[in-house]
Order: sequence, then structure tokens, then C-alpha cells
Amino acid sequence: MSHFSKAITEYATDIILELSKRGQTISTAESCTGGLIASALTDISGSSKAVYGGFVTYSNDAKKTMLGVSPATLEQYGAVSELTAREMAEGARKATSSDFAISVTGIAGPTGGSDEKPVGLVHFSLALENRTIARKWNFGDIGREQVRDITVLTALELICDVLHDRV
Amino acid sequence: MSHFSKAITEYATDIILELSKRGQTISTAESCTGGLIASALTDISGSSKAVYGGFVTYSNDAKKTMLGVSPATLEQYGAVSELTAREMAEGARKATSSDFAISVTGIAGPTGGSDEKPVGLVHFSLALENRTIARKWNFGDIGREQVRDITVLTALELICDVLHDRV
Repeated sequence: MSHFSKAITEYATDIILELSKRGQTISTAESCTGGLIASALTDISGSSKAVYGGFVTYSNDAKKTMLGVSPATLEQYGAVSELTAREMAEGARKATSSDFAISVTGIAGPTGGSDEKPVGLVHFSLALENRTIARKWNFGDIGREQVRDITVLTALELICDVLHDRV
Repeated sequence: MSHFSKAITEYATDIILELSKRGQTISTAESCTGGLIASALTDISGSSKAVYGGFVTYSNDAKKTMLGVSPATLEQYGAVSELTAREMAEGARKATSSDFAISVTGIAGPTGGSDEKPVGLVHFSLALENRTIARKWNFGDIGREQVRDITVLTALELICDVLHDRV
């Protein structure tokens, strides 16, 4: 039995096959998903050629020390912000010399939400060689597990879209 | 619905509560589980105080660059070895200034096994302030998902045993 839904497994398989074909690698930088994106990718047998590694940066300190997110960014915009997501992805890509790095930072709940940044708000970023993409979704207060799951799915979908030139 | 079994959730809850009570933190360094241990710990609401961060070091390169595992160790003993597990845990603890760091490195299968290092073999290590514990288990060729699951459970059990002075 897999930990992951069929849709997640299909996206993960697509990513591993496509990266393996290209001889490229991806790394991950996860806050609210806490390692689930890396888990989903490494759930696929044969993923070791395509997945370089990953960072789980749950605390602000970890975002700074492990990924080089700037203290000024965290102070001015907060951990759940587009700029933090971008710096997480770019930091992970740089630290690992991977071709791609995906980051997510959001509020899984049930606590930690505010009017400005409600439970279910997640920022995504994907760092490539020559550009960094950023996306924002608000999945709503649908439950901690559900926010984490749909964040994994959305992150993998973004990677697939980029790999298949749909972005 | 949780990704994790009741036993895993109970151990993870125990760890988060105990560490929060002490004001201590843990970090993770995962190879074969690919982020599932960090995911299980951060599945618990309120885990952000106790979980500093984590590393998924699936490739040998990642073990070296992200955790400082020595190239000589990897060459002489291989990625799935007690010494590599110890260096992963100690490297993660040092990199994060956490009180504890847990590492796992093993062969989830279905490929990658050998007579000497069969599918299901997993090395665990837990780095503490003044010592580093190492354990080895052979779970057998029970399937990739099952090896990963029982590895998460066994890692969390080891942390609980240490936190409650049962080791």
C-alpha cells in the first residue's frame, strides 16, 4: 500500500522518468509538507538517479542556515511568502547543484492562520537554470492532512508542467 | 486521513510532546525513507517547536555535500553501513545545532540488494550531545513500501526509547 494517492504516484512517476531520460536531477525544499514531496518522489523505484536530495526546513532558523533564506526576507515578508518560497527554491538548487529545485511554504493548520495569511495558503516555487517560477494557492481550511496532500499534488503538477513545457 | 499508521502517529506524538516539554529539537537525515520520518514528525500539529529540520540524502553526493559524510567512508563501507549512518546523524546534528539527529540508510528494494547487503537491511543512528547510538535491522524482502514503513516506525521507536531512558 502506498502512502500516496494514484494522482500523486502518476505525477511522481512521470517526473522520475522524464528526469532520468534527460540525465537531470531535482531537489526539494519543504516547509509545511515536511518531507512529503521528497517521500512521494522517492516512493518510485529507480528514483535515486533523478532525486539528488531534499531539505525539510520547518523552522525559520532552518530556512536561513540550510537554504540561505535571508533574515530580512523572513522579517519583512514572513515565512509564508512568495519571496521566501523563491529563496528556498534557489537556495536548494544552489546547495545541491541540481537542475531543478521545488519549494513549498504554507500554513497547514489547524493553528497559525491569520486574516492576511489564512490556513490553506501555500506558496510554491520552482528554480530552474535560467529562471524561478512562483505560484500561490489558497486551498482553504480543509484540514491539516488535506492541505499537505493537495500541496504535494500541486507541487508535482507544477514540476510536470515545466518538464513538458506547459508553463 | 493520515499517511501514517496509528503506531507511527503515537510514537511521533510522544516525541513531539517530550521534546516540546524539554525545549529541545530534533533533525532528520534520511536515505531510504526519503523524507517519511520528517513527514511523520511534522504530521503532528505543534511540531514546529520540536522539529528543527531535515535532510533527504538519497544520493551519495548529497550525503557528502549536505551532511559531510566522508568520501572514504562511502568508498570503504558503502552508503548502507553503520559508519555512514553514524556520520549522517552526526553531520545532521552539527549542521542544525539540534539536540538530537536521527539517520537511516538502507535498501528498500526491489532492486539494489546483494548477498552481503540484502533488500530490507537498514542502518539507524541517533546522535545525542555526548554519544551516538547505532542499530542495524534486516526486515527482509517484504516490499519497498513495507521496508520504508517499518523503517519509519523503528526509527521513531529508537528516539522514544532514548527520550525515556530505555536505551
